[in-house]
Amino acid sequence: MKDVGIIAVGGYEEVGRNMTAIRVGKEIVIMDMGIRLDRIQIHEETEIEKMHSLDLIQMGAIPDDKIMNNVDGNVVGIVCSHGHLDHIGAVPKLAHRYNAPIIGTPFTAELIKQEIESERKFEVANKVHPVQCGEFFELSRNISVELIRVQHSIIDCAFAALHTPYGIILYACDFKIDRTPIIGEMPDFKRLKQIGKEGVLAMITESTNVDKSGKTPSEKIARDLVWDTLLGTEETENGVLVTTFSSHIARLKSIIDAAEKMDRIPVLLGNSMERYFGTALKMGYVKKPDNLRIFGYRKSINKEFKRIIDDGKEKYLPIVTGHQGEPDAILGRVASGETDYKLECGDKIIFSANVIPNRLNEANRYSLETKLKMRGARIYDNVHVSGHAFREDHWELLRMVKPEHVIPAHGSLDMHAAYTQMAEDTGYEFGETVHILRNGQELSL
Amino acid sequence: MKDVGIIAVGGYEEVGRNMTAIRVGKEIVIMDMGIRLDRIQIHEETEIEKMHSLDLIQMGAIPDDKIMNNVDGNVVGIVCSHGHLDHIGAVPKLAHRYNAPIIGTPFTAELIKQEIESERKFEVANKVHPVQCGEFFELSRNISVELIRVQHSIIDCAFAALHTPYGIILYACDFKIDRTPIIGEMPDFKRLKQIGKEGVLAMITESTNVDKSGKTPSEKIARDLVWDTLLGTEETENGVLVTTFSSHIARLKSIIDAAEKMDRIPVLLGNSMERYFGTALKMGYVKKPDNLRIFGYRKSINKEFKRIIDDGKEKYLPIVTGHQGEPDAILGRVASGETDYKLECGDKIIFSANVIPNRLNEANRYSLETKLKMRGARIYDNVHVSGHAFREDHWELLRMVKPEHVIPAHGSLDMHAAYTQMAEDTGYEFGETVHILRNGQELSL
Amino acid sequence: MKDVGIIAVGGYEEVGRNMTAIRVGKEIVIMDMGIRLDRIQIHEETEIEKMHSLDLIQMGAIPDDKIMNNVDGNVVGIVCSHGHLDHIGAVPKLAHRYNAPIIGTPFTAELIKQEIESERKFEVANKVHPVQCGEFFELSRNISVELIRVQHSIIDCAFAALHTPYGIILYACDFKIDRTPIIGEMPDFKRLKQIGKEGVLAMITESTNVDKSGKTPSEKIARDLVWDTLLGTEETENGVLVTTFSSHIARLKSIIDAAEKMDRIPVLLGNSMERYFGTALKMGYVKKPDNLRIFGYRKSINKEFKRIIDDGKEKYLPIVTGHQGEPDAILGRVASGETDYKLECGDKIIFSANVIPNRLNEANRYSLETKLKMRGARIYDNVHVSGHAFREDHWELLRMVKPEHVIPAHGSLDMHAAYTQMAEDTGYEFGETVHILRNGQELSL
Amino acid sequence: MKDVGIIAVGGYEEVGRNMTAIRVGKEIVIMDMGIRLDRIQIHEETEIEKMHSLDLIQMGAIPDDKIMNNVDGNVVGIVCSHGHLDHIGAVPKLAHRYNAPIIGTPFTAELIKQEIESERKFEVANKVHPVQCGEFFELSRNISVELIRVQHSIIDCAFAALHTPYGIILYACDFKIDRTPIIGEMPDFKRLKQIGKEGVLAMITESTNVDKSGKTPSEKIARDLVWDTLLGTEETENGVLVTTFSSHIARLKSIIDAAEKMDRIPVLLGNSMERYFGTALKMGYVKKPDNLRIFGYRKSINKEFKRIIDDGKEKYLPIVTGHQGEPDAILGRVASGETDYKLECGDKIIFSANVIPNRLNEANRYSLETKLKMRGARIYDNVHVSGHAFREDHWELLRMVKPEHVIPAHGSLDMHAAYTQMAEDTGYEFGETVHILRNGQELSL
Repeated sequence: MKDVGIIAVGGYEEVGRNMTAIRVGKEIVIMDMGIRLDRIQIHEETEIEKMHSLDLIQMGAIPDDKIMNNVDGNVVGIVCSHGHLDHIGAVPKLAHRYNAPIIGTPFTAELIKQEIESERKFEVANKVHPVQCGEFFELSRNISVELIRVQHSIIDCAFAALHTPYGIILYACDFKIDRTPIIGEMPDFKRLKQIGKEGVLAMITESTNVDKSGKTPSEKIARDLVWDTLLGTEETENGVLVTTFSSHIARLKSIIDAAEKMDRIPVLLGNSMERYFGTALKMGYVKKPDNLRIFGYRKSINKEFKRIIDDGKEKYLPIVTGHQGEPDAILGRVASGETDYKLECGDKIIFSANVIPNRLNEANRYSLETKLKMRGARIYDNVHVSGHAFREDHWELLRMVKPEHVIPAHGSLDMHAAYTQMAEDTGYEFGETVHILRNGQELSL
Repeated sequence: MKDVGIIAVGGYEEVGRNMTAIRVGKEIVIMDMGIRLDRIQIHEETEIEKMHSLDLIQMGAIPDDKIMNNVDGNVVGIVCSHGHLDHIGAVPKLAHRYNAPIIGTPFTAELIKQEIESERKFEVANKVHPVQCGEFFELSRNISVELIRVQHSIIDCAFAALHTPYGIILYACDFKIDRTPIIGEMPDFKRLKQIGKEGVLAMITESTNVDKSGKTPSEKIARDLVWDTLLGTEETENGVLVTTFSSHIARLKSIIDAAEKMDRIPVLLGNSMERYFGTALKMGYVKKPDNLRIFGYRKSINKEFKRIIDDGKEKYLPIVTGHQGEPDAILGRVASGETDYKLECGDKIIFSANVIPNRLNEANRYSLETKLKMRGARIYDNVHVSGHAFREDHWELLRMVKPEHVIPAHGSLDMHAAYTQMAEDTGYEFGETVHILRNGQELSL
Repeated sequence: MKDVGIIAVGGYEEVGRNMTAIRVGKEIVIMDMGIRLDRIQIHEETEIEKMHSLDLIQMGAIPDDKIMNNVDGNVVGIVCSHGHLDHIGAVPKLAHRYNAPIIGTPFTAELIKQEIESERKFEVANKVHPVQCGEFFELSRNISVELIRVQHSIIDCAFAALHTPYGIILYACDFKIDRTPIIGEMPDFKRLKQIGKEGVLAMITESTNVDKSGKTPSEKIARDLVWDTLLGTEETENGVLVTTFSSHIARLKSIIDAAEKMDRIPVLLGNSMERYFGTALKMGYVKKPDNLRIFGYRKSINKEFKRIIDDGKEKYLPIVTGHQGEPDAILGRVASGETDYKLECGDKIIFSANVIPNRLNEANRYSLETKLKMRGARIYDNVHVSGHAFREDHWELLRMVKPEHVIPAHGSLDMHAAYTQMAEDTGYEFGETVHILRNGQELSL
Repeated sequence: MKDVGIIAVGGYEEVGRNMTAIRVGKEIVIMDMGIRLDRIQIHEETEIEKMHSLDLIQMGAIPDDKIMNNVDGNVVGIVCSHGHLDHIGAVPKLAHRYNAPIIGTPFTAELIKQEIESERKFEVANKVHPVQCGEFFELSRNISVELIRVQHSIIDCAFAALHTPYGIILYACDFKIDRTPIIGEMPDFKRLKQIGKEGVLAMITESTNVDKSGKTPSEKIARDLVWDTLLGTEETENGVLVTTFSSHIARLKSIIDAAEKMDRIPVLLGNSMERYFGTALKMGYVKKPDNLRIFGYRKSINKEFKRIIDDGKEKYLPIVTGHQGEPDAILGRVASGETDYKLECGDKIIFSANVIPNRLNEANRYSLETKLKMRGARIYDNVHVSGHAFREDHWELLRMVKPEHVIPAHGSLDMHAAYTQMAEDTGYEFGETVHILRNGQELSL
């Protein structure tokens, strides 16, 4: 057994259910514990909250951490990089099996707590520690973790740098290189270059969009697209509905700001809208405009829709759930005529989101758009930019951090292949310094 | 014979070689005379300047205006909407067959003159009249043409409103609805609504991008993308080359402005770069930055490249021709190692252009990119937004102008089909008020 | 009002819900009354059998025949070209509104009767007349209909030639030009050429696959593909399941014949398998192999699966429903582990079908294949050839029948556009002799 | 240094320029020496015959065998699997650097000799040994090579089994599992299973089509498609031209056989047609029909075309080069009107070939088809089946041969990734028993 091991638990053959274990001698740190939702979707009816982890593992919905039994060492910490479900969604199912604290930035930590609270099958007693970017948290006498600020499509996202006797190991999953973010500051390039100089033994990094040419546009571009779409029209009296990711606080802020410019009242509608944006408000990441209205429960949403119709559609900008075509989300219910918000010819539906690429979402979106169009709505699709680094952003990060070894994660073998080729361009060698792992494998360094 | 006829001469079965004749009683006005370059490209070697119009007609490269012999009436004017070759490129081959003046905005008129000058086969004696947007030009006692300001991917672009005894006929080809353009003002919505109220008998409009969902982003978004790409990097010492459409003056301005922010000297290289940007400078559409350098001839370009290399790549931002992979353009020559500008690992090539969608361009681009990558260059593709209206822009224009009849042009039958379905959504009926024409057909109104 | 009218009732803007009305003076003949299943699919739960026609019309699921109220004339007959649901599926919902007999070939007529029997909302009392290909049926003093043999993906498929005082009108929907069919004879080219000489006023024809290059391969090719797949393997001891269209009797015959060559017992499983193949057996279109087993009810299917497993998978070739991924079909139940037929590593699933191209089928197939693969199954996809004519088949038919007018049907505007361009190649002119209609429009001749 | 090494020289990052070196102790056997034509195509003008190997290496057109200098051992043999240029095309450029004989089946050996003869830069003196499938050739005291019959898209194709003191190493590149081939017998499954039992240390195998579902259809299906297309028409008086791969002798045989059924005289036209088919005739792989005419030189082709036109197009079936749109091939010259074979409306062009997927071929094909269509020709595209194994064929081979280690070759990283996943399904482990190599890497066993 060598001194350091990188164990690919989940997310190395798919997008979703991310989990990596880093063994340093006989101590282990776990990075992320995520869920894979499309493995839930293909089954007719499932209630995740009540399911056992072993069933979820068999479905391929959460990481198969049974392999951890073969790893010689004790887990001393669980670090979560950010609050998306493919990074924290399996915490309620798996964390209780480890006697270790959970670490994340304040927003991430808060979301983890909420996940744990809504769990119905397991009792999860691990302590959750909020840690600010720029700070260190001591996991053991030998190992401490430092969170480093980056940008992504959720606020308070971080890289985790493990400081170990063998050098730094950087977990760099889910990021974009955004110099003009809407909330928060640009990634901490200075610190990244510094650890690059200190010596990084290994970097584990996402490969989701590495096959896309160029760089990911800044979230500022997304804001401008949203504004260009909402404000750039002569047809200002129509109903307008916007839908986006509930957890994308920066995007929601841009849309709410647009409402002010349009002289409309922004109304957030939907359970997850209330939960995520409410949390961000409560924690001070965003300020609440005086006229912002928020409703999470079906009954109050129905009432609000009725009020909007009575008062005049043209005075409101409802921001709703349902961008992936989920039939039970607010937009799906509007499309099916189940609410008082009746669509008329010329009403606009703005999707400030991409379709998360899988067949089930595509089918749901097709059904949704068909229903919307049959009611006369006009569709503005993909008013959006990605939160994942494109190829040249990966190129820059790799050359900044200069790790001795790099391991693409967070994607399928094709994505790892694309990452590998990019890394080869700047001098890494496949199998020697850039490594492809399959779920369940350990790379010894 | 009815009183008004819309004659589809060219561009109704393809993108390119646009030409529409509008017959009002026995007087005819021709709208645009363009060329179709991909019908030239499929042949091994052709020198257009020296070719006869009949040969070009047989190749499908210019409009087949022989059908004009069957139209009863006299041509009283040739109006060109803007200066792209698919709208003015056949003027040197066809205009001399009509005893009529040519009308265009000042920039368009200037480009038409240049086209006529470089013709080697025909003598073209038609008078070219520059007319400002907002002004009228009397073509006959009965007919006058008014140019109305719009935006597109070239400056000084206009709609042409024919004022006739039977009502207004609007030729609305090649536009985007851009409220935040980089050069010039937004489209003249006020006037468009006004003629909508005065009564528009027919509108002929492009259908190129009507199958794209939503609205075309503003050119301001393109500028921000260019800046995000050029400025948003930690690797500031590399060579950087940008390529874009030579006739896209606004885009060139954005790139030149970026050079200033990057603290680099902008250098325009290439024959058409010099011609188009030089014309725009001379006519006052843009101001020349003190440090801007422009070279059109091969020899001086070679010298400039040598100078740049000697002085240090990191001080310059060359802006070059070759975005479609044309092997003889500057970027092609750099890729083949034929210039002194030697590419090194990490140098960046920014394509601020899309690939104009045809197989030959795709092949040329593939060859170009392969060569560039083999020399270590990093590719930033499609840092660009379109100059053609998307579906919802068409929707807005149609509802603003409210023509009695609408005829999609500037595209294939598929694009006309997509336009038709959009028009049906707002109440037009196929064959009654929205009409599909094939090259050579006349619609009588 | 001219003497002959072609009224596009349904299927002119979509694939599905076909219905065309042909008015001859004051007499009307209806061609097909089909359903559009994907307009049902986008809704959560619907029971067609119990729904009212007006609701189905609003959903876009059946032809909107309310426009028939505006047509001056009496319906004297309803002719169905073949037994697919997009051609006969709306008979139970609409036929009772017309006091007219229903005509089809014997197999088609039998399927129509079954549809009528399973209807739960309406009482349908129209008489159903089976007519052999090659025979005439007198609809009125002026009009008789002749059925002409063609090939498609269901047996006993026919063109309908209306003989009228104004010439012949040929309804040529759903066909392939197959000279080596598995069941029945090749299309009756001799008769088609003959009516071409007699003079065809108009031909209405499908356009589904006219955008596909070349000609549709014969069903004999499909048989050879099935045999190549089933017999061409060294792994002969595995479980093998085949799925195909229940109504595709010729394909089922080829699969059953393969079973004999494999020395396995063929077992047809599924409700619609029993219904369609049973009908074909009963009517003598196919002969029953002695060892063929057929089970339609869930309970008996379960029992049969248990028996197969007990006796040895390698002795049987189950032929099951579920090729489009329908979750309740037999293959879906096998994939979910709901039957005793447990899949093991290396078991083969043969899809002798394409995915009918819409997002919902694609999603269902994705879910199905994912589940199958998770159980170790190997997938053989698209062991199939189309039943719809490709471009050059259309070219041949058009030149054989030489109609004065041709109207593409059975498809979207894009498909009609592709048909139009093919017709133009052989001399037809758009708007003059080749016509595009939208649902609800009448073409007067 | 371990005892056995697999050295990936070329073809491990691309399709083309295949070359693998197998080191057994201090003896080396080279498998294939191919060329990559698309790396030639992207340059304007190149004459391969006169180029130096080092220039071709730099262009990426032939394997970079400079790495062989670092391999400790002597080359004792060069074995070529079949006669395609991506397997033998670099022999004239590289073989002279090794003092070793060249081994191939008789047809392959003959083609190698022809390649060597046409070389203009290097003197190649290696002895070329024809070896029959089923026979062994002793390369040294320790190593012998056995050729094993398989099927592909060229005749006399073989796997090479190296018998070494450490076990068998099977080079299994370019094959399809075809039980009903048109020429020759089905692959030697018996022998493959036998060596599987004897113990195969490693298998190197192509991965070109492993991402395609199911199995490759037999060449018999291709013959039936060709016949269905050529014979299945009522328009029998038109001109018909067929184009296919010159080296695909079985396909040519099927087309020539079709000519007899059509009662037309088959005429092979083109330089490479004459060379490949002539060689096959001379060596007895096919029998010459009495009426077959063959012409290779431009002048005699021109004369033959004139004769055909004079005698009547409907009596001949010209089989020509040019399926990839090569402008100088016969079909390209017909399309450009450079021959006496004038196309008329309704003449048929049958492409019994796929477009080899790269942008340059796609562009050439587009140009070719555009010109053909402008002259009235009807296109039948892709009347073809592949010569490369699909996923389930790979599955069967792998389970038949049961190698200890398997290495995908002949493809890009994506294809290797797809192969890896297939191998994992049957129990191989990535990095342990299924290995991905990059050009230049050695795998030690």
